[in-house]
Amino acid sequence: MMEVPLTVSMLWERMHTVNGASRVVTLRDPESGGTSDVSFRDVAARSSQLAHALGRLGIVPGDRVASLAWNNQQHFETYLGVMGMGAVLHTMNLRLHPDQLAWTVNHAEDRIIIVDASLVDLISAALPRLPTVEHVIVVTGPGEERSTLAGTLDYEELLAAESMNFPWPSIDERSAASLCYTSGTTGDPKGVLYSHRSIVLHALAMTGVDQYALSRHDRALALVPLFHAMAWGMPFISAVIGNDLILPGPHLKAEHVARFIDRERVTWSSGVPTLWTDVLHFVTSLERGSDNVELSTLRMILCGGTTVPEHLMREFDARFGVSMIQGWGMTEIFPGATVGADEPGPSEDERWSRRRAAGRISPLYQLRVVDSGGKIQPHDGVSVGEIQARGPVVTGAYFRAPRGTEDKFDAGWLRTGDIGTVDSGGWVRITDRAKDAIKSGGEWISSQDLENAIMAHPAVREASVVGIPDERWGERPLAYVVAGAPVSDKEIQAFLGTRVAKWWIPDLYEFIDAIPRTSTGKFDKKVLRAMTGRHS
Amino acid sequence: MMEVPLTVSMLWERMHTVNGASRVVTLRDPESGGTSDVSFRDVAARSSQLAHALGRLGIVPGDRVASLAWNNQQHFETYLGVMGMGAVLHTMNLRLHPDQLAWTVNHAEDRIIIVDASLVDLISAALPRLPTVEHVIVVTGPGEERSTLAGTLDYEELLAAESMNFPWPSIDERSAASLCYTSGTTGDPKGVLYSHRSIVLHALAMTGVDQYALSRHDRALALVPLFHAMAWGMPFISAVIGNDLILPGPHLKAEHVARFIDRERVTWSSGVPTLWTDVLHFVTSLERGSDNVELSTLRMILCGGTTVPEHLMREFDARFGVSMIQGWGMTEIFPGATVGADEPGPSEDERWSRRRAAGRISPLYQLRVVDSGGKIQPHDGVSVGEIQARGPVVTGAYFRAPRGTEDKFDAGWLRTGDIGTVDSGGWVRITDRAKDAIKSGGEWISSQDLENAIMAHPAVREASVVGIPDERWGERPLAYVVAGAPVSDKEIQAFLGTRVAKWWIPDLYEFIDAIPRTSTGKFDKKVLRAMTGRHS
Repeated sequence: MMEVPLTVSMLWERMHTVNGASRVVTLRDPESGGTSDVSFRDVAARSSQLAHALGRLGIVPGDRVASLAWNNQQHFETYLGVMGMGAVLHTMNLRLHPDQLAWTVNHAEDRIIIVDASLVDLISAALPRLPTVEHVIVVTGPGEERSTLAGTLDYEELLAAESMNFPWPSIDERSAASLCYTSGTTGDPKGVLYSHRSIVLHALAMTGVDQYALSRHDRALALVPLFHAMAWGMPFISAVIGNDLILPGPHLKAEHVARFIDRERVTWSSGVPTLWTDVLHFVTSLERGSDNVELSTLRMILCGGTTVPEHLMREFDARFGVSMIQGWGMTEIFPGATVGADEPGPSEDERWSRRRAAGRISPLYQLRVVDSGGKIQPHDGVSVGEIQARGPVVTGAYFRAPRGTEDKFDAGWLRTGDIGTVDSGGWVRITDRAKDAIKSGGEWISSQDLENAIMAHPAVREASVVGIPDERWGERPLAYVVAGAPVSDKEIQAFLGTRVAKWWIPDLYEFIDAIPRTSTGKFDKKVLRAMTGRHS
Repeated sequence: MMEVPLTVSMLWERMHTVNGASRVVTLRDPESGGTSDVSFRDVAARSSQLAHALGRLGIVPGDRVASLAWNNQQHFETYLGVMGMGAVLHTMNLRLHPDQLAWTVNHAEDRIIIVDASLVDLISAALPRLPTVEHVIVVTGPGEERSTLAGTLDYEELLAAESMNFPWPSIDERSAASLCYTSGTTGDPKGVLYSHRSIVLHALAMTGVDQYALSRHDRALALVPLFHAMAWGMPFISAVIGNDLILPGPHLKAEHVARFIDRERVTWSSGVPTLWTDVLHFVTSLERGSDNVELSTLRMILCGGTTVPEHLMREFDARFGVSMIQGWGMTEIFPGATVGADEPGPSEDERWSRRRAAGRISPLYQLRVVDSGGKIQPHDGVSVGEIQARGPVVTGAYFRAPRGTEDKFDAGWLRTGDIGTVDSGGWVRITDRAKDAIKSGGEWISSQDLENAIMAHPAVREASVVGIPDERWGERPLAYVVAGAPVSDKEIQAFLGTRVAKWWIPDLYEFIDAIPRTSTGKFDKKVLRAMTGRHS
């Protein structure tokens, strides 16, 4: 067979030719619904111009170029241009604290930062502390004010000077294409390098009917940020398939998202549960009348980042006829390592039992379950342990591996840090993050399962559980509860009596106004743990 | 990312675990509908046993092992066992003349032949002339008589002695997994070596909604022989996806196929048009009554090998609600290099115009159009030329390349020998085989288009056109016509007058009883050309 490497420029070629007529739509004005709407072919041509411009600024294959941007057309162009030319795109997580951002830029030794005009302030103060950064290129969207930061280059001006045909180099498919730092809750961020090969393989593996199930007729809204694990692969998958790619820019308010879906006839979307909870509440809040918002074109939502609440799936199912499918993955293993399904089972109960699972193991992935003693567990749907992953799209080491990251690997397998089960059909259930699970009397209590059991109480709006040290048991659970109606700890205990094992029932409760959340909408257990001091 | 090679044993692993419960069903008794019905997990375990047995017989990675078999479970096991252990599976084409078969075995230097009991006679006479063959392993299906050929080994006895766990070696993904000889109409057969990498990549590329569109809920009937271009990838694609794989054994008669589809609730199938024409006629011939055969579970047929007649697609569409989708490829580039679609167009005319195309360029493929002067043509849907292919699943050279095969390649591109157009959306129309096209006055006449125009005449049942030498024009078309009702050459000429360019209209006609066909049901132009003698 021919020696043709699997590279991002191979995907570019498909966007430039076969899928050239597909659209990239970016929301620019959420009030009027104004968008930029351009073809894949134009995006491809502009990414060629960017590659030329970067070359002129001295960027050579292997150099790191950073992006600090929302989900918009220019960010997509940056993906293609930087990776296509063989440089490495470091997608900066704009939710990080500016000090952390600066840390990642210095760790990556980024030579150029391409930044949205609206985000310039996030880095301008830190620039003097970023010695490797030689240029800042500012992307000014239509109608936006140009940055006043001195010494910056203008994205559009750079492109205008360049040819629309870049001779993409033939590069080793194992070389790095992009770099994403995990926003670890402890220690410094860790960099995951994605190779060209892994990006193409992941995109191919996700095209299946039982995976993302996208066709070229879809209009796919990528709500997951382009700086989160390559937006779950959406830019690359879209390049392969030729679905339209719909991008929200910074407009992630539920109202804007809902109206955008309606206006742009979105058929498919991805995103975290909190966002879809907000969309649901917004649509519900509208009177059926002149200001109705329709989600009728939507058929599938790939939902993940954390366990998807069952009631959310049921609401989207019953009210809009939308299949909300769970997916599981992480920066280190790409998203979609498991993907769920909405399929008729022998009974409605079984159907929903499946839907509660994190999904089924996707092509190219191997998973194994390892208990706390290091023993490999059977795939029987019952035996619990840490899920470990292996495969050509799983990271084998961190970028410039920081000390202490060796223990993220176990004899060629990546330790995901998630606790769960796998059954004989490859269905995975995640019961907890390893660091969130509570080890009581030598056994694990799943904080997630316990939280769901408490939240099933009608008077409880939200609940989160963390472990606190206990002399006798090692750890015991402490429950933080947001009550929607008067309820006592005794009432909750009685309620749990029939729902979880006796030894799971927390002895300690704290009633608070709101559960602190991380930037991605997950319960922030780090903050909660810091609050437990008076119980220790 | 981890260094995990793309190998057939990776697909085996998926059959052994995640997709273990899927079924392999082989038709054994077409009258009663009796089948062997086993799980993927069992097929995987048995292929481990086969690998052990082959190792015991001295087979080491790189050795060639041949199969001469129908589409049945054991052939699938042979695929997995031979390729998984790093040996190379030479799938012998049982339609070849025994002398040609022997030639391929000697060319490949096969050490072992695994043969169906019913096919032993095809090679027994040639065995003395096959010096490299050390063992013949005979597969006797349930209820079949054991071979009486002396010195053969029994497949089931070999397996029974071995462990069900084979330690698949980690092999270079670029090493050869299988070998398929093209049944060239001229010269010796040419061997195409498929690498492990290309097999896995092709399987992944075909999983998409816009490609094979298979899900794990499908029951896919593979009518294409396992010795034809890896059965269009079906064994590997099924391993990835986990659809049930339904195999007809030697029972390819229309009645058997139709009843098999009905009984086994087949949802998806693949095969050449002649076979489906026969199925259509059979179902039509049945009285609607007690002996009715239903194709109601079938939703999609991937049809290819030659241009699919429009009326066949329309009949399956109208009568059974089955989308018959065209695919295009060849041994050298795998099948599915283009795949069609049945989708609502702006009009019914446009929908059918799309359906007449060979399909749209699939992921991982690049195609270009080169005219007879060697000039690259635009993808405008109009400019005609030879289609050339490039990509990681396209062969770069023939096995032990015979002299004269260098001209099958053009600066890194494979010359497919098919003539056609590509439009800006990647839709490909094949108008002819290069060797069938008639070059008249420096321009190409498409023999296919001309044949279709002649066959549109109500009195013509079949027609085939070949070129004969002409002093003035270089070549002129000669039409062989099978008439269903009385018709003269003048009448056909008049009929063509409004349908094709004037210079396309043949001057010469021969009325014959039947068009000779090749073993795969295509018009046999080699025979027709041999018949043209008296016109030269």
